[in-house]
Amino acid sequence: MTERFANTPQPPYYAVIFSNQRTPGDEGYGATAARMEQLARSQPGFLGIESTRDEGGFGITVSYWESEAAIAAWRAQAEHSDARRDGRERWYEHFQVRVAKVERAYAGPPARGAGQ
Amino acid sequence: MTERFANTPQPPYYAVIFSNQRTPGDEGYGATAARMEQLARSQPGFLGIESTRDEGGFGITVSYWESEAAIAAWRAQAEHSDARRDGRERWYEHFQVRVAKVERAYAGPPARGAGQ
Repeated sequence: MTERFANTPQPPYYAVIFSNQRTPGDEGYGATAARMEQLARSQPGFLGIESTRDEGGFGITVSYWESEAAIAAWRAQAEHSDARRDGRERWYEHFQVRVAKVERAYAGPPARGAGQ
Repeated sequence: MTERFANTPQPPYYAVIFSNQRTPGDEGYGATAARMEQLARSQPGFLGIESTRDEGGFGITVSYWESEAAIAAWRAQAEHSDARRDGRERWYEHFQVRVAKVERAYAGPPARGAGQ
């Protein structure tokens, strides 16, 4: 049950909080989103990613990074830059990006039995 | 289309990133979640909230606050403390909480026409 969660180290580290509303239809979004996650995972300083989207197309993706420099390098990555352009032009009705420094973190609940 | 987005001020401010996996069934969760959002909105220092959950029950809620003190006060609020206990005991298979200081933010794309 934990594969959806990012296994991040002790703070401090950085989070990019991306909240977004998808436009209707796929328009190539799904394949590019999967490719971007694969690319992000190979970037220096990548720590993890958590992402979800409801039936109405409202999504939140939080990616975690070692440093501001790692975030800047990912932003400058060529294929990612192309994808962000397509996002602005086609895939998102609206989005917000917030870059934040994670100062503390905790998890729960303790495991409650088999299968979890 | 923007009511799902938090209308936050210029940084800096704080974010509480709550990623979570729900247990099956409602078990009183829906009513309490709605009540907690209502309560949070009435707390001093509350700036906004963004929340989504997919069909598999994986959710991310990010609440935004003016200060660490505002977050601490919300955490200590009695009804919220009770709800967090129920969350640990019943509603969540697993969760992670990260408290982060938002340092910069931007939004997009520009409005592209009527109805957005």
